[in-house]
Amino acid sequence: MSTENIKLLIDEYLKKYFESREGENKLIYEAMAYSLNIGGKRIRPMLMMLAYNLYKKDIKDILPMAAAIEMIHTYSLIHDDLPCMDNDDLRRGKPTNHKVFGDAIAVLAGDGLLNEAFSIMIDYSISKNSLEAMKASKVITDAAGGEGMIGGQVVDILYEGKEISEATLKYMHEKKTGELIKASIVAGATLGEASSKDIEILSEYGYKLGLAFQIKDDILDVLGSTEKLGKNVKSDENNNKTNFISVYGIEKSVELCKEITSQCIALLDRLNSDTSELKELTLELLHRES
Amino acid sequence: MSTENIKLLIDEYLKKYFESREGENKLIYEAMAYSLNIGGKRIRPMLMMLAYNLYKKDIKDILPMAAAIEMIHTYSLIHDDLPCMDNDDLRRGKPTNHKVFGDAIAVLAGDGLLNEAFSIMIDYSISKNSLEAMKASKVITDAAGGEGMIGGQVVDILYEGKEISEATLKYMHEKKTGELIKASIVAGATLGEASSKDIEILSEYGYKLGLAFQIKDDILDVLGSTEKLGKNVKSDENNNKTNFISVYGIEKSVELCKEITSQCIALLDRLNSDTSELKELTLELLHRES
Repeated sequence: MSTENIKLLIDEYLKKYFESREGENKLIYEAMAYSLNIGGKRIRPMLMMLAYNLYKKDIKDILPMAAAIEMIHTYSLIHDDLPCMDNDDLRRGKPTNHKVFGDAIAVLAGDGLLNEAFSIMIDYSISKNSLEAMKASKVITDAAGGEGMIGGQVVDILYEGKEISEATLKYMHEKKTGELIKASIVAGATLGEASSKDIEILSEYGYKLGLAFQIKDDILDVLGSTEKLGKNVKSDENNNKTNFISVYGIEKSVELCKEITSQCIALLDRLNSDTSELKELTLELLHRES
Repeated sequence: MSTENIKLLIDEYLKKYFESREGENKLIYEAMAYSLNIGGKRIRPMLMMLAYNLYKKDIKDILPMAAAIEMIHTYSLIHDDLPCMDNDDLRRGKPTNHKVFGDAIAVLAGDGLLNEAFSIMIDYSISKNSLEAMKASKVITDAAGGEGMIGGQVVDILYEGKEISEATLKYMHEKKTGELIKASIVAGATLGEASSKDIEILSEYGYKLGLAFQIKDDILDVLGSTEKLGKNVKSDENNNKTNFISVYGIEKSVELCKEITSQCIALLDRLNSDTSELKELTLELLHRES
């Protein structure tokens, strides 16, 4: 299946996910669905499904797990955008969650998405009675937690407006963005019952892809346009945040991003499966304009 | 084991839980540990362990699951206290999380505790390779989500300063407080491999206990002292919030609380196990002064 069609599959699944929820608490699902369905690139669920597809044919089987990782990603965006965090008004070309629903509901919508993701993963593990599903859930949970995404966000906050070393910058991004991207791939391969040798290679691929992804994000923050990005550019500069550009400069950052992407492709070449779709997505991420 | 000793066991486990975490992200664990260890009553983990103890002897076996539910409870308090939510400065006699660590870290500390709880539950389910553990995790996750605690909190926010019907008030408290209390008991019994008939009785007991607990909370909010409660009294009145007192008046609320507690005891009498410890805790909750 083409990456395009996989994205449509994910979009459709997520669009329907909260539709039938009714009751006095309905607003929370409206707020959760709002951020979940305003045009995300679906990179993490796509990576999971493509990694799974290296070993198993019917990728629809893991749609719930793919939806769960997108919910975790979305929750992190809602909380990151809050006035007490990055204070962003615009995300994917639309007003951020707290701009539409208010700060209190936005906090709860984030909480709700994180919780729903776990609910899905446990349900999935029970219904499949699968140790692989539980292990994949564990990989995702760890990547989202204090040693992953949340830990990276804390370091980001701690260093706001301060000098930051290259090592700390890498640490921060590895945790904040890299871990969940890597987890998408490792979880997909785990669900596909890949060998531990393959999982090791894909884990390194995921690590490097996450790094390239973040450098590209920083490049777009400087060179991209608000129109294409759907969020305000130069937000790092305006928030006094150190990023790859302020450490390496724009030219070296562009070069670095290309180099790491090549390393990603080389890692995929070490696998005995058809990795053409994963390679295509890897290159798309390098060349993206938003 | 006495309820006193069970509480000590939980306190000790939670106190040590984050102690060894080191690294640039250490602050998040400090913030998480701060709220986790400022003198909670440990009602939910105690209920879980006592319910488990009706069927299995070694209650220490489920300490991780008990810790997980206390982390979920604590995360909800941290987020509820935020300036954009209830804006409370005092909790358990100490400054609230955001007063100590700032709003951004408080949001992340809440996120981190929710995430850690899931990580613990998945780890526990994997290590025990136990379907019961997964089912118990599912019960807890559902109780914490949009159909549980988060849903109740949303309704609470929606009705702030507005007239509220008796039905909506009950719905709100059932979701906001009741579900997680009920889940503690049902999860404990599930982990103990109780029969479905027993789980049904304990589920009703848990529902009623949660209701009595909330009515008592509202009574204490009016009649208690800041000193004993460790949080500001009349916070509902000051926040224009409807509660059981504003609907029923103080006298009927006190009576209702006693009546529901009696129903709880009667439900426990229907079980064939020694329920003396659970009964003791039930009565303690009715007579508590904080």
